[in-house]
Amino acid sequence: MSKKILMKGNEAIGEAAIRAGCLNYFAYPITPQTEIAEYLSRRLPEVGGVFLQGESEVAVSYMIFGAAACGERIFTTSSSPGVSLMCEGISYIAGAQLPAVFVNIMRGGPGLGGILPSQADYFQATKGGGHGDYRMLIMAPESVQEAVEMMMLAFPLAEKYLNPVMILGDGLIGQMMEPVQFPDDLKSEPTNKDDWATNGMDTRKSNSRNLIKSLFLDPELLNNNNLTLKAKYDRMKQDEVRFESYNIESDYKVLIVSFGTMSRVCKTAIDNLKAEGFEVGMIRPQTLFPFPEKAIEDAVSKDSCNLAVSIEMSMGQMVEDVERSVKGKRPVEWYGKCGGDVPTPEEIMDVVKKLRT
Amino acid sequence: MSKKILMKGNEAIGEAAIRAGCLNYFAYPITPQTEIAEYLSRRLPEVGGVFLQGESEVAVSYMIFGAAACGERIFTTSSSPGVSLMCEGISYIAGAQLPAVFVNIMRGGPGLGGILPSQADYFQATKGGGHGDYRMLIMAPESVQEAVEMMMLAFPLAEKYLNPVMILGDGLIGQMMEPVQFPDDLKSEPTNKDDWATNGMDTRKSNSRNLIKSLFLDPELLNNNNLTLKAKYDRMKQDEVRFESYNIESDYKVLIVSFGTMSRVCKTAIDNLKAEGFEVGMIRPQTLFPFPEKAIEDAVSKDSCNLAVSIEMSMGQMVEDVERSVKGKRPVEWYGKCGGDVPTPEEIMDVVKKLRT
Amino acid sequence: MSKKILMKGNEAIGEAAIRAGCLNYFAYPITPQTEIAEYLSRRLPEVGGVFLQGESEVAVSYMIFGAAACGERIFTTSSSPGVSLMCEGISYIAGAQLPAVFVNIMRGGPGLGGILPSQADYFQATKGGGHGDYRMLIMAPESVQEAVEMMMLAFPLAEKYLNPVMILGDGLIGQMMEPVQFPDDLKSEPTNKDDWATNGMDTRKSNSRNLIKSLFLDPELLNNNNLTLKAKYDRMKQDEVRFESYNIESDYKVLIVSFGTMSRVCKTAIDNLKAEGFEVGMIRPQTLFPFPEKAIEDAVSKDSCNLAVSIEMSMGQMVEDVERSVKGKRPVEWYGKCGGDVPTPEEIMDVVKKLRT
Amino acid sequence: MSKKILMKGNEAIGEAAIRAGCLNYFAYPITPQTEIAEYLSRRLPEVGGVFLQGESEVAVSYMIFGAAACGERIFTTSSSPGVSLMCEGISYIAGAQLPAVFVNIMRGGPGLGGILPSQADYFQATKGGGHGDYRMLIMAPESVQEAVEMMMLAFPLAEKYLNPVMILGDGLIGQMMEPVQFPDDLKSEPTNKDDWATNGMDTRKSNSRNLIKSLFLDPELLNNNNLTLKAKYDRMKQDEVRFESYNIESDYKVLIVSFGTMSRVCKTAIDNLKAEGFEVGMIRPQTLFPFPEKAIEDAVSKDSCNLAVSIEMSMGQMVEDVERSVKGKRPVEWYGKCGGDVPTPEEIMDVVKKLRT
Repeated sequence: MSKKILMKGNEAIGEAAIRAGCLNYFAYPITPQTEIAEYLSRRLPEVGGVFLQGESEVAVSYMIFGAAACGERIFTTSSSPGVSLMCEGISYIAGAQLPAVFVNIMRGGPGLGGILPSQADYFQATKGGGHGDYRMLIMAPESVQEAVEMMMLAFPLAEKYLNPVMILGDGLIGQMMEPVQFPDDLKSEPTNKDDWATNGMDTRKSNSRNLIKSLFLDPELLNNNNLTLKAKYDRMKQDEVRFESYNIESDYKVLIVSFGTMSRVCKTAIDNLKAEGFEVGMIRPQTLFPFPEKAIEDAVSKDSCNLAVSIEMSMGQMVEDVERSVKGKRPVEWYGKCGGDVPTPEEIMDVVKKLRT
Repeated sequence: MSKKILMKGNEAIGEAAIRAGCLNYFAYPITPQTEIAEYLSRRLPEVGGVFLQGESEVAVSYMIFGAAACGERIFTTSSSPGVSLMCEGISYIAGAQLPAVFVNIMRGGPGLGGILPSQADYFQATKGGGHGDYRMLIMAPESVQEAVEMMMLAFPLAEKYLNPVMILGDGLIGQMMEPVQFPDDLKSEPTNKDDWATNGMDTRKSNSRNLIKSLFLDPELLNNNNLTLKAKYDRMKQDEVRFESYNIESDYKVLIVSFGTMSRVCKTAIDNLKAEGFEVGMIRPQTLFPFPEKAIEDAVSKDSCNLAVSIEMSMGQMVEDVERSVKGKRPVEWYGKCGGDVPTPEEIMDVVKKLRT
Repeated sequence: MSKKILMKGNEAIGEAAIRAGCLNYFAYPITPQTEIAEYLSRRLPEVGGVFLQGESEVAVSYMIFGAAACGERIFTTSSSPGVSLMCEGISYIAGAQLPAVFVNIMRGGPGLGGILPSQADYFQATKGGGHGDYRMLIMAPESVQEAVEMMMLAFPLAEKYLNPVMILGDGLIGQMMEPVQFPDDLKSEPTNKDDWATNGMDTRKSNSRNLIKSLFLDPELLNNNNLTLKAKYDRMKQDEVRFESYNIESDYKVLIVSFGTMSRVCKTAIDNLKAEGFEVGMIRPQTLFPFPEKAIEDAVSKDSCNLAVSIEMSMGQMVEDVERSVKGKRPVEWYGKCGGDVPTPEEIMDVVKKLRT
Repeated sequence: MSKKILMKGNEAIGEAAIRAGCLNYFAYPITPQTEIAEYLSRRLPEVGGVFLQGESEVAVSYMIFGAAACGERIFTTSSSPGVSLMCEGISYIAGAQLPAVFVNIMRGGPGLGGILPSQADYFQATKGGGHGDYRMLIMAPESVQEAVEMMMLAFPLAEKYLNPVMILGDGLIGQMMEPVQFPDDLKSEPTNKDDWATNGMDTRKSNSRNLIKSLFLDPELLNNNNLTLKAKYDRMKQDEVRFESYNIESDYKVLIVSFGTMSRVCKTAIDNLKAEGFEVGMIRPQTLFPFPEKAIEDAVSKDSCNLAVSIEMSMGQMVEDVERSVKGKRPVEWYGKCGGDVPTPEEIMDVVKKLRT
């Protein structure tokens, strides 16, 4: 593992991709993640990689498609409105079963909104902004170090499932500086690309030719493609759920569900409340799809637990998945804010105290 | 009310918009809904309206923004990939609180997919394909007549809530011919546009100037905008839920939830099963957002009811909202297909019979 | 004729189009001609016309194609970089033999350049910015009144030749205010559109269907299309040359050739020089294509005339056509500036005096 | 020099760029030059280069701008309509004084036209398709070998003048196979990029920072930029004129001016006519800008010479430059065709014989 260095989240994300073995990055600038492009425009040439600024996010999404189809590791980064422009492309990439990594450093919306942190693209990320039945594997880091590790994991996961993977961060992750290490053991090389990529047709090696497409005019073939996708998403639900439990061994009365940097604030609130003698547990989904439904169902089922609350920097999106997970066993509440001001620990403490009564 | 005439769904949708008082239509062609553009390119000039084919769906979405901002009634139609390209624009329109009507005649996906009917854009429509916290009011017609009525309702609803409204149909609705009537009492005129539209600044009439924007750099103002939006969506949940109950007075063992043309097949299956002595009830959401959560919770709570099944032409999307609604009171199953072949009544009958056991 | 009113050039150009019977205007804003769009966005709705801002100049050029193909009178306005983006579209419109009117209110170039007046798009306008053998009929006004009259003539000329017509002005024409009259006798109605436009196919009236295209894969057919175009351009050279002679009856020693607002400065210089006893003549091309070759050849052939000088707000473009016209009979010089500063009468006087020696 | 290998023109052009030291190629496919992209998509990765297919020719032109601004050798290839879409970008690149190489493998126009050979983009190439006062250095190869050599020269010439260079070929050049050698001595490395490129700011080496722009809002600065450009074009006229003389030592009665593959047909015609005792000379411009004005003036001035004829695969474009060069000393005729059928030697012989009479 590399030694610890102090880095800004956006730069660490860029460096992590390189360390993971991805030397292609296409993007279009947008606040609050433009530093990734700035960093990589300088770094990638040093390591023989390619940085390319596309004409628009729409253009970038199809360059991603093209590079991925050729078997190249590829990723892009953007922020909320930019990701909306990629929705069609992401659907095509998922439909064609290609690996690619997307990073969304969310800003406040809808529309132009603002440039401060937000988590309001939860729905877009997890339920598919694009059309058709597809899912992305979504990981939400809480710290710069976790962002680095998730980035490095994203490429092999995308290749394992031949599916887009998204890192869903927020402006805080992108802008804050923290010490990071780049784990050597997360370096990986794509090994299976000859099986599917259109990476040149060496017909001496193989009788068959790889074909990449999302068009299936025959309804049976299209249904089959969708069944194949569904089977992958079911496997993800089986194998890829990641979450962190916090203060879950206590006799908590309230279960918080939160993700990303919001969780860090919640942890402080939980610690403070504990000091006051009020126990609160937390499940922090690290993967938003697949969602830790079982973990939340189990956690809320604890006898001491009276209710669950989804705390989000949005007007209530993840709360729907919490509701589904809780299956009516306890009341589910929501608290959130959506404009860039991150709720403070004190605010969370007040919210939880009020909910108790 | 006009006399009954036999019309193709796509043409009836176009005509309904005109009858509703909308004389502006911007679109980009895509199967299976291009007949709407074809019809309106001929009809709109006859009534002094404007048909314009944009450069792309991205372009169209922003022309919609522009026309809506000027206080003009405006709508567009597209199909799945085209709607994905409008995701950013829809988020901007919602963020700027503008009325506009979108029609998605869904085709199979993801990606290019196929051109046959599908319901796989349920998530995109109801959870927001675009970024940020916004919702569209979504109506899903089951017949050409209902499509006409929903179209005519869509414009005053969009204006009432200053929010985009979407008609979510499928290729069957667009392609089939049925007798339709255009109800005179659904004609309406926008009455409130001087309050918000940038329709020329007659400063003699008013001291204030209307301003349309989705940018709020101040986090408090952006949060306020989101609270305003949330309040509208809460009002929609209160006032705009529409659904149909079918065979709900019987002692049904299974509750089907299905929407759009899928429901018509389910009705035949339910009738056939009833003849066999097996009672099945159905809730057909006519609005997908707001979703008839309470109706489904109530229906599934009936003593005779053992389980709910969401039947969809997708790999399982609405089923998540059914799960949320059912709150763990009964098991929730899903059955679906996604390639263009519409499940037959016999297939539905088999599925329901198997679920019973 | 209407009474005289004081109008800014840009607004007068917009009004002239309406008076000429053109109710369709699609454009994308760019300094120094955005006032045309601003004016027409207000005026066109008053007269039942359509104003539409496209996504880009590329998009606009193809909307022009579409509207023209349907037999609608249509025009757009832009400035230098915007016109470059229309080059492909203009070539298609010329190739498909459609009438349309383009206005280029030139600004300094190349690239972004500046926003002050320029005449440096002479080559682009007269030699075809787009690919292939085509020409536009180009008119260059010297005053707001002439701009109005050229605009009103442009539509019937475009329809007479089924070819794009361009008004090539500069920022001065667009920005200055002058009294103008709109001549009633320049109103016109398109009369021949049923012969060629795809304006709906009433097969009861006609056995044949109009077809608009620029694609001719058979080389003989493509050559024929080019011969048809060439024949039109030859007819333009025969019938449409327009120019103004100034002080041409004197025994001028120097012949100035200049166009547009540059000519007004030259006239002052010529008057001043005449007062000093130094005679200078001028030919002012009002059409740049077809170019008044014969007039210039004749004028330069006068015994008293020692040389010709092309005075342009560019680095020397029209001078090539002057050279061709003069056919070696006299030396041809060029004087120009290209940055936004319009040469003054004194500067022109100095230049001419120096050339004499 | 490499040994002779048989290559298709399009592939040889691609290979020549690599041999010249250019490892960046961005393009959008269009017949009849798509083989260049196909070839380079395979070849560039082998040599560590970058092939990128842009979203459109507009997008490509600005990617070229970006890469050139960073000091990277870069080129693109397209065909007529695609080049029209690059007109704005080319003007920006010229205005910002950046080196870049464009290849236009011309097809029939205007509009979609056809896919067979043409020379009808002569005007667009030489007079600036884009806006403003700029020129490209234009080279027109007659054979695959010459295309290779011109490609290899193009990069150092672009860097010498900090100006775009265009290779203007036609479908024949692109499609035909000929033996070619890649001259080692035409390999070159850019040496001056630190003087102007925005290739990272090592402020230890230099106090000044390189700035790339085409915007000069101050009219004096914009005029200065144009004077700088004009001085470069004057130097090109001085130093870079290239042409071939054919049968010029004979007492020719007619002087043909033709370029590119058209010249090869003319040479056969000239040989055949010579055998019949009828002498015809030819000047073949290898550079179209700068144009060999003096060579043509001299050649036409020969006592035996009665007239000049410009023979082009267009409706008469280069003929204007021939007229300017001839300065009225002899009549100037034109012969051409524009649809894809290349005039045959017999046809040229007939034309020349008729002109004589």
